[in-house]
Amino acid sequence: MAIPLPDGLTTPALVVDPDVLDRNISRMAEASQARGFALRPHAKTHKCAQIAERQLRSGARGLSVATIGEAEAFARAGVDDLFIAYPVWLDAGKAQRLRRLADVVALRVGVESVEGAQRLGNAVRDSARAVEVLVEVDSGSRRTGVQPHAAGEVGKAAADVGLDVVGVFTFPGHGYGHDARARELAARDEERALDEAAQALRELGLGVRVISGGSTPTVGRWQPGTVDELRPGVYVFNDATQLAIGTCEVEDLALVAAATVISVPAPDRFVLDVGSKVLGSDRSSWVTGHGYLPRFPQGTITALWEHHAVVRLPEGVRGPRLGSLVAVVPNHVCTPVNLADELLVVRDREVIDRWQVTARGANT
Amino acid sequence: MAIPLPDGLTTPALVVDPDVLDRNISRMAEASQARGFALRPHAKTHKCAQIAERQLRSGARGLSVATIGEAEAFARAGVDDLFIAYPVWLDAGKAQRLRRLADVVALRVGVESVEGAQRLGNAVRDSARAVEVLVEVDSGSRRTGVQPHAAGEVGKAAADVGLDVVGVFTFPGHGYGHDARARELAARDEERALDEAAQALRELGLGVRVISGGSTPTVGRWQPGTVDELRPGVYVFNDATQLAIGTCEVEDLALVAAATVISVPAPDRFVLDVGSKVLGSDRSSWVTGHGYLPRFPQGTITALWEHHAVVRLPEGVRGPRLGSLVAVVPNHVCTPVNLADELLVVRDREVIDRWQVTARGANT
Repeated sequence: MAIPLPDGLTTPALVVDPDVLDRNISRMAEASQARGFALRPHAKTHKCAQIAERQLRSGARGLSVATIGEAEAFARAGVDDLFIAYPVWLDAGKAQRLRRLADVVALRVGVESVEGAQRLGNAVRDSARAVEVLVEVDSGSRRTGVQPHAAGEVGKAAADVGLDVVGVFTFPGHGYGHDARARELAARDEERALDEAAQALRELGLGVRVISGGSTPTVGRWQPGTVDELRPGVYVFNDATQLAIGTCEVEDLALVAAATVISVPAPDRFVLDVGSKVLGSDRSSWVTGHGYLPRFPQGTITALWEHHAVVRLPEGVRGPRLGSLVAVVPNHVCTPVNLADELLVVRDREVIDRWQVTARGANT
Repeated sequence: MAIPLPDGLTTPALVVDPDVLDRNISRMAEASQARGFALRPHAKTHKCAQIAERQLRSGARGLSVATIGEAEAFARAGVDDLFIAYPVWLDAGKAQRLRRLADVVALRVGVESVEGAQRLGNAVRDSARAVEVLVEVDSGSRRTGVQPHAAGEVGKAAADVGLDVVGVFTFPGHGYGHDARARELAARDEERALDEAAQALRELGLGVRVISGGSTPTVGRWQPGTVDELRPGVYVFNDATQLAIGTCEVEDLALVAAATVISVPAPDRFVLDVGSKVLGSDRSSWVTGHGYLPRFPQGTITALWEHHAVVRLPEGVRGPRLGSLVAVVPNHVCTPVNLADELLVVRDREVIDRWQVTARGANT
C-alpha cells in the first residue's frame, strides 16, 4: 500500500513519501550518470524548492521549467541554472521579466520561430550574462517545434540577433503509451530528429553543445550517442498513468491525494471528498477511471465531480467505512500539484514536514 | 465575438466581461423572482467576492458553497448567509472551523448520513446561532445523497442531536446533456425526489421550510410547486459545455482565457500558450475538443497539454498570426477559475479592474 496515512488528517490533501521520493530521484540520477547523460529534470511536475534542491544535490545540472513565472520562483529559491523549455513569446512585460532573470541566473530559453528569436534577442540585448538558446524540434508529437531540417534557419536568426545558440531540444509526447515498442520508437524518433536538427545548425556554422530530450516514459530507452541531456519530470512522484503504461511499480508512487469517505450509498459504491479541483481531470486512454486506489486496486473511480469521486467496487470486495481515509494516486501528477498550496511530507503515519508549492500558480 | 481582448495583454489570463456578467446575473435573478423561487447561487463557480456581491445585490437569498474553506473566505468577505451544500465529514479541525463559522454567519449544512449528522451536532452544540440542516437526496445523479424515502431517518438523527432540520436538497447531475428532454426529465426527477424526501421528514414531525434544487441546465425547467430555492452556479459566466447543450448563446459567455499564438507549424494548425494548468481538462461528451474559440468557431483544440493548446482548422480557414491574442472559452468554467489568482475585468479592450479569486484554493 502506497503511503499509509496519518489518523485524523484533514482532507483533501496531497501527501508525499520522502523516502520513495528520494529513491526515485537518486535512481534517475544514477542511471543517467552511469550512461553519460546530463540530467535537467522538469520542475513543472513538483514546483517545489525542497524537491529541486534534492534533484540538484543528487547531481542534476540545473532545472527545466515551462514558464517565466516558474523560472522566477526557482531563481528566488536559489536555483541558478534554468532552462525555460518552451518557445516563450515575449510581450513587453515578459521581455522585462526575462531580462531580469538573465541578469541573475544562467538562463536557457527555447525558440522555434524566427520572430520569437528576434524578440528574445531584443529583450536580452544588454543582459549581464549571455542567454543561451536551444531550438525546439518536433520529433513526432505535433505540438510546438520546427521540423528538424528547419532548425538551421531559426538558429541562424537567433545568432544574428546576438543570442548564444547552443543546441536543440525536443519533447517526445508521442512516447506515452501502453506499448513498450511505441516508447522505443519514440526514443528513436527523438534521436533522429535531434541529430538532423543538430546537423542543420552545424552546417550554418553554429555550435551544438547541448542536445536535450527525454520524458519519463522514454528516458530509460536512450542509447548514449546523439543526446546528452535528459529532462524527465514525472519520475519524482510517478502516477497512475506511469503505473498503467508500466514505467513504474506501486512501490515507486511517492504522492497520493488523501481523501475521506463521505458517503457509502451502496455496498459496491463509496464517495470520496476529492474531486477535479484537487486531482485534476486528466485521463489518458491508458488508465481506467480517474485515479488508482492502492487499498482498492480493483475499485474504479467511475465519476469525478469537482468535490466528489464516486468509486465502484466489484462484487464481493468490501469497501471502506464512512469517515475513513483513502489514498488516491492521481492519473497525472503534475495537475494536482499545480492545484495545491502545500505538500504534506508523511513518514510512519506522521506529518513530519510541510513543503510549500514554491511555484504555485506561476503559469505565466 | 466574445470579449475583445486588450492589445499587449500578458497571457495566459482569465478575462471577464462585466456587462455580460451583470446581464447573466440579473436575468437569472429576475426569472427566479418572477416564478417565485428564492435564489442561492453556487459560488464555487466564481469564488469571487465582487461577483458574490453582485448576486446578493440582485436579490439572491445567500450563497451556496462546496467547502468549509469557501464558506470561511466568503464570510471574511462579508457574506452572512451561507449554505455548505455538501455532506461535510467533520474531523477535529473541521469541527472547530465549522463551529467558528456558525458563530458569525447564518449557516446551513448538508447531511446525508446518521453519523455525519451526529458529528455535526456535536461540533455546533454550543454555537451562538443554531445551524440549519438540509438532508441531501439523490435525485438520479448517483453521487451523494440518500434515497428519498430514507431522508426521514437522517433528518431525525440530526434533530435528535439538537440540529435545526429545515428541509431537503439535491443536485441533478444527470441533467447535463444535449437533449432538452433529458433536462426536462431531470427537473421532474428532482421534483419527485425532493417531494418524497420532504414527505418523509414531515411524517416524522420535522419541519420542511426549504426545498432546494437546480443546476444551470435544469433551472429554467422548474414549475413553481415543490421546489422553493434554486442553486445554479455556472450561469454567471457560462462556458463551452453550456453552449454545446444549448443553455446559453455566444453573447452570454462572460469569461474567456486569453492566450497567445506561440507557434504556427502549418497553415491548418496553430498552438496557444494556454493548457490544462489554466483551462482545466474537463471534457464532457457534449463538447468538441478542449474549448470553444469565438474567433475560430470551426477550429478545434485537438490536443491540450499542460502549457499548450493545439488548434486544427478546416481547410481554407485562415488562422491567426504568430504572437496574436486568441480567446478560448473553457469547457467547464469552474475549473479555470479554481486555477487562477485573479480575473481581469475588461471593457472596450481595456483592463478596468482586477478581481482576486477570494476563495482560491479553498477546497478543504
